[in-house]
Amino acid sequence: MHIGLVGLGKMGANMRERIRAAGIEVTGYDRNPDVTDVPSLEALVEALPAGERVVWVMVPSGAITDAVIRDLGGLLTSGDVVIDGGNSYYQDDQPHADLLAENGVGFLDVGVSGGVWGLKNGYGLMVGGDADLVARVLPVFDALRPEGPREEGFVHAGAIGAGHFAKMVHNGIEYGLMQAYAEGYELLAAKDLVTDVHGTVKAWRRGTVVRSWLLDLLVEALEADPSFGEIDDWVEDSGEGRWTVDEAIDLAVPAPVISAALFARFASRQEESPAMKAVAALRQQFGGHAVKPAGTTGPISDTTPVPDAAVPPHA
Amino acid sequence: MHIGLVGLGKMGANMRERIRAAGIEVTGYDRNPDVTDVPSLEALVEALPAGERVVWVMVPSGAITDAVIRDLGGLLTSGDVVIDGGNSYYQDDQPHADLLAENGVGFLDVGVSGGVWGLKNGYGLMVGGDADLVARVLPVFDALRPEGPREEGFVHAGAIGAGHFAKMVHNGIEYGLMQAYAEGYELLAAKDLVTDVHGTVKAWRRGTVVRSWLLDLLVEALEADPSFGEIDDWVEDSGEGRWTVDEAIDLAVPAPVISAALFARFASRQEESPAMKAVAALRQQFGGHAVKPAGTTGPISDTTPVPDAAVPPHA
Amino acid sequence: MHIGLVGLGKMGANMRERIRAAGIEVTGYDRNPDVTDVPSLEALVEALPAGERVVWVMVPSGAITDAVIRDLGGLLTSGDVVIDGGNSYYQDDQPHADLLAENGVGFLDVGVSGGVWGLKNGYGLMVGGDADLVARVLPVFDALRPEGPREEGFVHAGAIGAGHFAKMVHNGIEYGLMQAYAEGYELLAAKDLVTDVHGTVKAWRRGTVVRSWLLDLLVEALEADPSFGEIDDWVEDSGEGRWTVDEAIDLAVPAPVISAALFARFASRQEESPAMKAVAALRQQFGGHAVKPAGTTGPISDTTPVPDAAVPPHA
Amino acid sequence: MHIGLVGLGKMGANMRERIRAAGIEVTGYDRNPDVTDVPSLEALVEALPAGERVVWVMVPSGAITDAVIRDLGGLLTSGDVVIDGGNSYYQDDQPHADLLAENGVGFLDVGVSGGVWGLKNGYGLMVGGDADLVARVLPVFDALRPEGPREEGFVHAGAIGAGHFAKMVHNGIEYGLMQAYAEGYELLAAKDLVTDVHGTVKAWRRGTVVRSWLLDLLVEALEADPSFGEIDDWVEDSGEGRWTVDEAIDLAVPAPVISAALFARFASRQEESPAMKAVAALRQQFGGHAVKPAGTTGPISDTTPVPDAAVPPHA
Repeated sequence: MHIGLVGLGKMGANMRERIRAAGIEVTGYDRNPDVTDVPSLEALVEALPAGERVVWVMVPSGAITDAVIRDLGGLLTSGDVVIDGGNSYYQDDQPHADLLAENGVGFLDVGVSGGVWGLKNGYGLMVGGDADLVARVLPVFDALRPEGPREEGFVHAGAIGAGHFAKMVHNGIEYGLMQAYAEGYELLAAKDLVTDVHGTVKAWRRGTVVRSWLLDLLVEALEADPSFGEIDDWVEDSGEGRWTVDEAIDLAVPAPVISAALFARFASRQEESPAMKAVAALRQQFGGHAVKPAGTTGPISDTTPVPDAAVPPHA
Repeated sequence: MHIGLVGLGKMGANMRERIRAAGIEVTGYDRNPDVTDVPSLEALVEALPAGERVVWVMVPSGAITDAVIRDLGGLLTSGDVVIDGGNSYYQDDQPHADLLAENGVGFLDVGVSGGVWGLKNGYGLMVGGDADLVARVLPVFDALRPEGPREEGFVHAGAIGAGHFAKMVHNGIEYGLMQAYAEGYELLAAKDLVTDVHGTVKAWRRGTVVRSWLLDLLVEALEADPSFGEIDDWVEDSGEGRWTVDEAIDLAVPAPVISAALFARFASRQEESPAMKAVAALRQQFGGHAVKPAGTTGPISDTTPVPDAAVPPHA
Repeated sequence: MHIGLVGLGKMGANMRERIRAAGIEVTGYDRNPDVTDVPSLEALVEALPAGERVVWVMVPSGAITDAVIRDLGGLLTSGDVVIDGGNSYYQDDQPHADLLAENGVGFLDVGVSGGVWGLKNGYGLMVGGDADLVARVLPVFDALRPEGPREEGFVHAGAIGAGHFAKMVHNGIEYGLMQAYAEGYELLAAKDLVTDVHGTVKAWRRGTVVRSWLLDLLVEALEADPSFGEIDDWVEDSGEGRWTVDEAIDLAVPAPVISAALFARFASRQEESPAMKAVAALRQQFGGHAVKPAGTTGPISDTTPVPDAAVPPHA
Repeated sequence: MHIGLVGLGKMGANMRERIRAAGIEVTGYDRNPDVTDVPSLEALVEALPAGERVVWVMVPSGAITDAVIRDLGGLLTSGDVVIDGGNSYYQDDQPHADLLAENGVGFLDVGVSGGVWGLKNGYGLMVGGDADLVARVLPVFDALRPEGPREEGFVHAGAIGAGHFAKMVHNGIEYGLMQAYAEGYELLAAKDLVTDVHGTVKAWRRGTVVRSWLLDLLVEALEADPSFGEIDDWVEDSGEGRWTVDEAIDLAVPAPVISAALFARFASRQEESPAMKAVAALRQQFGGHAVKPAGTTGPISDTTPVPDAAVPPHA
């Protein structure tokens, strides 16, 4: 078997290596000349057997994925297949499938989990699309997925879009799991009684109910930086958490934990919170409570002037 | 009628003025010689008619309230009444009542709402204790409460503790209300489309579903400082919000909004969040996502080194 | 002045009455022959002065509003103005404005608050669009808004869409406020110590920090049905709460309170929660904790069989 | 080595078996004559070597644990050690230690995780107390903990109370993790696009970021009951989640995820929600929105009478 792979970044390059290690030929294309196997997307397409080409796209979601799929739509021919393995929004999948179908090109959407560890451990794969295409690409999926029973690292979750939907939910769960561990970590760290925080988290790795791969990683992170002194409390969000909560809203599914985890990330990135300024201002208004003037540090002083109670509000 | 009032701070001094304005004699005691009417608690007790003394305690909750009530217990005599009008924890009320009852002294707990505006508008009063004592102190309650029907500014909520319990819940609600307005304010402020944030909030004062006294105060605050440029986003909590959530937990009552408001205040006071550091560290571990080194400012750089994927975690 | 009003339901009919009471002529159209003034939309348009027609649309948001605006676009002529006073999604406003602009017809979006009480109290109005159009329609806004200073019941919040955006945020806040009161009410109701729940809520109407119009309504509701025995705990959501949280996600604004209020409504409508079934199943798996079989009532029995620990999970 | 074990329920009996399998002699006592090794607590104490007795207590937390420790305090002598391995509240540990210290008896508190799977997999252990006592009991800890490096299943977390504190936080995290998976499960189940929900969850077991022991259990549970048709959505809470949130409040640590998980359990057990009745009543009041009369089923009807708008609220 011989497939094409577009995008040789952190994820793509590792995946190329893992697929090749399984004995499947891979021609990779990337705009970065240092890593690419061919000079252009056209060259990639030409390198593959016409009518049965399989091109795996592994580029940033959104505009770049969209552009690559459009380009491939103009280059591929009937019987070929495109796989979008990026973190695309699941509602973009059907339009992409429709676009490619105009030229008889098939489409599969695949959610890929595993991050930088996937090269060694294998990648969890969630696939959406037609069963016959899934069957055709199965050797590639088998190369990428972890060892063990296929169904414990791979699923054909449903029709087009189902793969990215499943990955989106996977990431939403991930947000919640990470926040749960993080809150627990902070509780341990805040309690003087616990004199070995790192050791406590480490002791959870075996036998406990909370053992998990994320916990293993938390232990790794604490080994490297025991009190997280070298890292800022600034947490990016990649979009999938937002989509998950949007979807919860659309489906009327209560998602208090996933949304709380998402909002905690938003808050982590605010230099200052307009909302909490408003609350501070309100407390000053009704109670004459002291506020902390902007730009000050240290403890609040109770000498901050109280607002003039002689000018009452309207009601 | 002639009552005693212990504690002439922001609240107590205003209450003395309002009670006096209603024609009730008030002897006030405070440790601050500039504001006190008598030199000592003993002098206060002596100034009141024995056997029918009413002493309103308006001092900070906790140790100070406890000490004042203990002192009064040693000075007052059978038939006298002590009223705790501070923000005491409701579970402290029965012990105080029991202590005073040893000398035949009665006790009422009163939750007082209204802040610095109470002098003019009157105070909302929630009372716990025996009905006959409530009846005896009614003229004082009538002096303090707002004009209008008594039942719209005063309630005998139940037995000892019920007044402070009702006040605690009142404050818990207050946390939720303030946070709701604050989130809405931030949404308006974050949206370029809305060019008159202050005017929008102001326009909600009449006719709308969200009109309230707190909204009036938010408008006042925005008049004084239109974009909250002079105020820090640091929000204290006085304890009643904590008690409310503790109580929700004890009663198995879901309180997602009040607890979210409380946690937002906790977060507002953190220089940095250990939990969010843990989440940032986790993202770096599994995804090789860039983190923001501690102490840096400005946008995150994607050149932060990725952890070495060659040392996999245990699982 | 003479305006047209499309939609004479609960809101529209009241608004017609209030505008007429202010001396402005109103021709109303509704598909319901019992309430309409004219037999058709065409007749409505013909009844108004060409080139300076003002047509206020007050119909359900979404498809119906869209259809009415399209129809009006085909009937109105240059210089006329359409006002969308319904609860439309703010992102629909610019497309509507563009559509109408093709024929030289102007557009304003207006968020209207006040519900069934607006007839008497006036409606809070939040307006988006061009200043000259706002000025032209000002007499109608003045007729609808509450008495008092104009700026306390009316705002020109920004360009097209800003009116509905402000109303959306208003409603999001409303969700949070209602949930805050509701949690507080449940805490009072759950506590035996509080023997007068209704009286306590009523006593908050004057003088307290939590006094508001919604609180007044809660008291009214409790007067009519003191323990809510006649009402189900099923709460609809109209869409604006969802949009508000969607917007918070889009703007990366933390909205824990508004989202918690929204999710509480979703949960209120679930006959059973798939998520909580999953949690119950998990507890049974790891702890052998008893579960409550579907369809049973009464207390859980600890005799429910424990899962067979001899078949361990994979990890 | 020869130790005593009090409490041979689900956990205790398994632990006896595992300790014995490691070559340590165990005399067990339980009130149930079918499982006990000795007829009384006195007999248990007599069976052990005086001055170096180790008695592990594994009974329900609270009153029963308290009674057993008091009884042991009267029977044991200087140099003996009591270990509380139950889910006791960490603030009860120091009083227990003090009580036992009166007779020169030592105390360790141990949080034990692993549930019914511990017999086979080993138990995660978190220990609080003096280092010399920990060292003395280490062979027992080694017998109970999972295979692998000791520090990945065992920790001496700190002084007395630290073991139970760590276990409490562990359980708090567990609440959050379970709720995160549950929300994700519900999202999959609610989406028609995903035609293989069970398969999707199963595919997350290997390679993905969300893989964990709890996920393995979720898959097991779905194997047994694919759509949770046989289980009610009623979720008990054992107390440790409540303590965790109480502790978060006490330490001013934001815990939005753990608290949301706790509140979801509370809500799962409510036949009806007083709070949501209040919200429904409020919506009816201000908007004339239809409500669902108590006891009705099926869709809401919009013909429910609207409240009389002619009786306006006070404000």
